[in-house]
Amino acid sequence: MPMLSAAELRNRVRQNSPLIHNITNVVVTNFTANGLYAVGASPVMAYAMEEVRDMAGAASALVLNIGTLSPETNDAMLAAGRRANEEGVPVLLDPVGAGATPFRTRSAHMLLQELDIAVLRGNAGEIANLSSDPVAMRGVDSKATLANARETAETTAREFKTIVCMTGRQDIITDGTTTYITSNGSEMQTKITGAGCLLTAVTGAFVSQGDDPLESVAAASAFYGVCAEAAAERQSYPGPGHFQVHFLDMLDQLSDEQLEEAIQLTKEESAL
Amino acid sequence: MPMLSAAELRNRVRQNSPLIHNITNVVVTNFTANGLYAVGASPVMAYAMEEVRDMAGAASALVLNIGTLSPETNDAMLAAGRRANEEGVPVLLDPVGAGATPFRTRSAHMLLQELDIAVLRGNAGEIANLSSDPVAMRGVDSKATLANARETAETTAREFKTIVCMTGRQDIITDGTTTYITSNGSEMQTKITGAGCLLTAVTGAFVSQGDDPLESVAAASAFYGVCAEAAAERQSYPGPGHFQVHFLDMLDQLSDEQLEEAIQLTKEESAL
Amino acid sequence: MPMLSAAELRNRVRQNSPLIHNITNVVVTNFTANGLYAVGASPVMAYAMEEVRDMAGAASALVLNIGTLSPETNDAMLAAGRRANEEGVPVLLDPVGAGATPFRTRSAHMLLQELDIAVLRGNAGEIANLSSDPVAMRGVDSKATLANARETAETTAREFKTIVCMTGRQDIITDGTTTYITSNGSEMQTKITGAGCLLTAVTGAFVSQGDDPLESVAAASAFYGVCAEAAAERQSYPGPGHFQVHFLDMLDQLSDEQLEEAIQLTKEESAL
Repeated sequence: MPMLSAAELRNRVRQNSPLIHNITNVVVTNFTANGLYAVGASPVMAYAMEEVRDMAGAASALVLNIGTLSPETNDAMLAAGRRANEEGVPVLLDPVGAGATPFRTRSAHMLLQELDIAVLRGNAGEIANLSSDPVAMRGVDSKATLANARETAETTAREFKTIVCMTGRQDIITDGTTTYITSNGSEMQTKITGAGCLLTAVTGAFVSQGDDPLESVAAASAFYGVCAEAAAERQSYPGPGHFQVHFLDMLDQLSDEQLEEAIQLTKEESAL
Repeated sequence: MPMLSAAELRNRVRQNSPLIHNITNVVVTNFTANGLYAVGASPVMAYAMEEVRDMAGAASALVLNIGTLSPETNDAMLAAGRRANEEGVPVLLDPVGAGATPFRTRSAHMLLQELDIAVLRGNAGEIANLSSDPVAMRGVDSKATLANARETAETTAREFKTIVCMTGRQDIITDGTTTYITSNGSEMQTKITGAGCLLTAVTGAFVSQGDDPLESVAAASAFYGVCAEAAAERQSYPGPGHFQVHFLDMLDQLSDEQLEEAIQLTKEESAL
Repeated sequence: MPMLSAAELRNRVRQNSPLIHNITNVVVTNFTANGLYAVGASPVMAYAMEEVRDMAGAASALVLNIGTLSPETNDAMLAAGRRANEEGVPVLLDPVGAGATPFRTRSAHMLLQELDIAVLRGNAGEIANLSSDPVAMRGVDSKATLANARETAETTAREFKTIVCMTGRQDIITDGTTTYITSNGSEMQTKITGAGCLLTAVTGAFVSQGDDPLESVAAASAFYGVCAEAAAERQSYPGPGHFQVHFLDMLDQLSDEQLEEAIQLTKEESAL
């Protein structure tokens, strides 16, 4: 079922070209826009308080990314998020660098408290830094075992009543009760900037076209990982420059057959 | 004559390296700068009220792009545009997303009213959303016929006393009286972000070096389309990643012979 | 010794992944981040007054780039720089466009006066525009001889008590007393945006891991130039699009052997 879902969802995105409103950081704007175009979505970036409500209300998903946050952008995210919540537009949060500075941690917490966040997508460190469960945090460092990471993801999902997508060597997608794990992906994703940020945006496109949010997040994550694998295999020259170019190609060119053949996605109920 | 003009103008740009001052959106800054370098121009981005007048006064063309507008940037555009007008520096406007939010539409209108805009470059929807002629607007959607689109472009050019460059499957370049139509270009241009924005900037470089503004805009549009065709033909791997890389290459590498052979540009007087 | 140093330093960067805090311009953020990842460093961009002190204090180097300066960014640079100075974190300044507008020149001077700048990296025109020595400035234009350029670099280094890295056909690295000159590099670096900006950031990574700042700057400059040469040689298609992709590859892929074989770095004491 999930395998079918990933290809189906991807094709719905291509057919419907959902408008994805991004309030994101200045490092990844171009890559995010190109990646969204490559999967068939319609990206728009709009940050001014004068228009974020209008844009968020017209969008199919709203993606908030705190990577180069300012107080003004913070306010714009809140205004856009409230309008999206009113209109039933799913809101995704990418807490880039949560834990790196108090400002980022506070901002991410504020957005989680004030808004109905459909999906929280970050790496193990970022998710752990947002969680209030000190037990969960202990094991979550560079040597975090999958079990530790999964526990943290699940408790964080329950704490914030959201879907957590914790990405790393394996991606853990959970609503706190049901958990998907995908092993797709390539080491090369860690060698370019914005690989995580773009996944959050692509997840927004998938969630906007899916029937079940949790399945849609899992499908996005697996699809994205398979594209990265295909890009790494195809790589005409080694190195991060060519990887990025091939990766954008594969987001557009990956066939349903390649996707279904390579996808590695398992589903488990929480031991809660 | 136009065929000669395109190659000649392109070579003048390469010889003179005109300084093109861009106040543009955060999505396309890098691509715009690299594209301008590729055609042989000297890009500069400057947004602060403290320096936009100085920069615009020293530039060969000023390119305003409202893609990620803020009230501060709006003010800076106005100040830079006034200085450019005083100094006889041509001002180009790219009304990204006009019609998408009232803020964008108002800002584009304000710039058109307050400044002497030499060239207005947008897609059919953006141009139609700025026009006050409801007849012209009716037929302008994704199924717009060339005739509808051309009528809209011509009435808009007359309304705002500017040159309109309406890009799409065919590009329509008109001052409301004389109209050029170019059929050059590639479907791949719609699969990457910033293809339109960069054309506006490249048009600024061409206009700054040309003798006749309307011909210069037409030449820029045709040259740009031929580069896109050449990039799509050369494409070593399918997909938008490699297209963008080959496109930047061709902006630099296209030969005069390739340009003259491929250019498709017709000139007609308006049936006005 | 310098040859050994370049490879050694580069490997230290890869092993230690120093956090490089960039407050940079909006044109080159993505390229800078990808370039830093490619050399093995950890880039972070943070601009808000609310967090720049925290980030600068936690970083291994702070890179300030005035390419698209605003008064707010100016203040943030000053606050971040002061904290970095307190913590002994090296601060590098890239005075993009100094001389192009009074605002940029004033801002660069202000940062040089208020902060302890470890390295000032710019082209001949930018460095000369900051220098108060009119004799030095005279010869420094597009036809500047190496001797003129070197004199300007040395007097500027002494004036601001910093290391000057003046890049061009040859890079001149000097503390005003001892001067390194490297002839590595490729003409293609002038055909893409951000080649200088990224060098400043990479220099930050090298200085953070080096024992001697002057040697580290020289090693960074030579390493960077060799990567550009290797990218130009490998270039699968001519043009700036493919050059940039190959260049990012080589920052990651260049071997110690390639580096040691190609490096051209000479050391001379000033005739002061």
